[in-house]
Amino acid sequence: MTAPLHEARPPGAGRALPDTQQGMRRRNLARVLHAVSAEGSLSRAAVASRIGLTRAAVSTLVDELIRWGLLEELGPERPGRVGRPGSALAVSGRGPAGIGAEIGVDHLAVCAVDLRGEVRARAVRHTANRGRAPGPAVEELTELVRRVVAEAEREALWPAGLAVAVPGLVARDGRTVVRAPNLDWHDTDLGALLPGDWPLTVDNEANYGALAELWLGDGTPRDFLHVSAEIGIGAAVVVGGGLLRGTRGFAGELGHVPVRPDGPLCPCGGRGCLEQYAGEEAVLRAAGLEPREDPVGLLAGRADQGDESVRAALRDAGTALGIALTGAVNLLDPETVVLGGALAGLSPWLLPSLETELTSRTAGPPCPVTVSRLGPEGPLLGAAHSVVRGVLDDPAVVAERP
Amino acid sequence: MTAPLHEARPPGAGRALPDTQQGMRRRNLARVLHAVSAEGSLSRAAVASRIGLTRAAVSTLVDELIRWGLLEELGPERPGRVGRPGSALAVSGRGPAGIGAEIGVDHLAVCAVDLRGEVRARAVRHTANRGRAPGPAVEELTELVRRVVAEAEREALWPAGLAVAVPGLVARDGRTVVRAPNLDWHDTDLGALLPGDWPLTVDNEANYGALAELWLGDGTPRDFLHVSAEIGIGAAVVVGGGLLRGTRGFAGELGHVPVRPDGPLCPCGGRGCLEQYAGEEAVLRAAGLEPREDPVGLLAGRADQGDESVRAALRDAGTALGIALTGAVNLLDPETVVLGGALAGLSPWLLPSLETELTSRTAGPPCPVTVSRLGPEGPLLGAAHSVVRGVLDDPAVVAERP
Repeated sequence: MTAPLHEARPPGAGRALPDTQQGMRRRNLARVLHAVSAEGSLSRAAVASRIGLTRAAVSTLVDELIRWGLLEELGPERPGRVGRPGSALAVSGRGPAGIGAEIGVDHLAVCAVDLRGEVRARAVRHTANRGRAPGPAVEELTELVRRVVAEAEREALWPAGLAVAVPGLVARDGRTVVRAPNLDWHDTDLGALLPGDWPLTVDNEANYGALAELWLGDGTPRDFLHVSAEIGIGAAVVVGGGLLRGTRGFAGELGHVPVRPDGPLCPCGGRGCLEQYAGEEAVLRAAGLEPREDPVGLLAGRADQGDESVRAALRDAGTALGIALTGAVNLLDPETVVLGGALAGLSPWLLPSLETELTSRTAGPPCPVTVSRLGPEGPLLGAAHSVVRGVLDDPAVVAERP
Repeated sequence: MTAPLHEARPPGAGRALPDTQQGMRRRNLARVLHAVSAEGSLSRAAVASRIGLTRAAVSTLVDELIRWGLLEELGPERPGRVGRPGSALAVSGRGPAGIGAEIGVDHLAVCAVDLRGEVRARAVRHTANRGRAPGPAVEELTELVRRVVAEAEREALWPAGLAVAVPGLVARDGRTVVRAPNLDWHDTDLGALLPGDWPLTVDNEANYGALAELWLGDGTPRDFLHVSAEIGIGAAVVVGGGLLRGTRGFAGELGHVPVRPDGPLCPCGGRGCLEQYAGEEAVLRAAGLEPREDPVGLLAGRADQGDESVRAALRDAGTALGIALTGAVNLLDPETVVLGGALAGLSPWLLPSLETELTSRTAGPPCPVTVSRLGPEGPLLGAAHSVVRGVLDDPAVVAERP
């Protein structure tokens, strides 16, 4: 029996905490912290009514969270509220921070996000990582991580964990990059290369992009298909507010869904995969352009200037995306499809043909397609926020800090 | 925000019971009942060690379950076991029963399954339901239900609920058939037509077939894609031991995944959907046969006799299934694909081309494809067992019985 495919984390509920008094207390600590986090600031009484515990029980939990440095008192509540004024609580802007990192094909990026969800430190370096050995690339990333951590520490934050987004398939151990074709990395244990100072998780950039959309998107539902593209085309399936990961951790390989079964050979072994029609290189080729750095910027710029061959190439890519997404929507029945990553920037030229395809192939009302506000920022933010969510979902981990 | 897409029910854990002392007690009752159910018979001490509670706590829970008629004492354990002999417990063969029913295109069926999982009563009637009005069909089904319930009651069982499998899409209310093309039913509220004597759930036959496979299959993993066919082609996605239902309850529409995007028009509005190549009617047409009753029996019989045009039609259907499943496997990364329903009987002629397609289109090790042992029995058994699981997952419902 393998680990479950999905990883649904409703705030403080259904977590894998043991079903004991102690586990219940941990879940209730999470409920308190989530309630305050969701509202920005909240009195003890408001927390109690929101989560259905007594005022006394909530006070004990709040005291613990204050002692751990996760909540702070803002002083008496603003006037104008009904009832006896209480001291408002807020999530602390000091204390634990999530460190997110991203290994892109042409850049490295690191950021620190506090419990309030604010980016407090950030470093980006443009560097060609395609075909680069993992050792030097990770060494350079580690240097950026240390710089961001030092900056965060100057603001009284401490790293609760490091989460690294990579453009490839990651094993369920959360540290081994099984295959990252556009870096040319195979079976690379990043856990052995990255510093061991903090809890570490490595995950696919499409997964982190989807989580960012879930947590930071505007009105994003808890059930959606997130499609992103850097060089390849990835997708992440979010079900009930959790990622569907697959048995091996490889779910969401939309780029290798057959679109035209007799189409061109794909390096994956298949024929006519979506990437052969809508991947960046395929689109560049169809538009008669040479591969180069920032292909999305190039395509968007040309399309914007009215270059008809680029627009036609993007239209065809949208059609192929629409065919592949029809299959995905039929299988998953998501509430929406969200275009994220680099695709967000190309959406004006992809969306019309994509939606035509999706609409004409569906009997009922077609699944709505939206464009992510986060765009290429998604994976880095998702990585950092995943660490923050880990603390919100089980604040007691902070007390176990060595 | 909609209900979560999935419905994962690990035994007694993660259920939607409130996180209170009372909820914890209910979950622990479920753990005890599941532990005994999984082993056939078990002493109190063995239950305690298996679920990690004290012997005293388990005894209190066991007494309650005996009082409710869900567990019974078998007397002193068989010799040969290590340690002081205890009284062995077993799940009761009297008490609550799950009533499963199935509305097929050419039959109606009902059965009663006890808490031990044994079928205790059964009725089947062959009747042409295609195009029949829901009223008379449900009336006939109700007659069979009453007969099976009467038979079960003579054996000291009582119906804990009625679950009805239908060949169509069911809304998330669990009672409205949104679309059952092969019955020609649309927006039919079965809840208004079926007797209101017991808790009622209506669900798609492919979903119940997949649940039967999960609960009764031989070594079936908790993450798989279950593909079944009666007249249409349906699939159900099982993730972490629960069904992925989709936002509207329509997930698993494998039959309308585009296989050849420029292929023949499908009644769904799409083109080149899987059903146009691998649905029963498409296969009959390709083999030059007229549609008639029991098309699967006809196709299997002819293929078995060496009819080359039937074999070729099934080979092509396998190829189309392989293309659609490649996409599904890329998206979901399941542990296995299980062929169930009528497809199970055709698997000798479908599997070779299906597997060729799946293997040649996958870079890594391909997803294994297995054939369900349950075949066409799956949906009916899954329906009855879903009621039984409801009792095992929250035994306290029995005490709330009016």
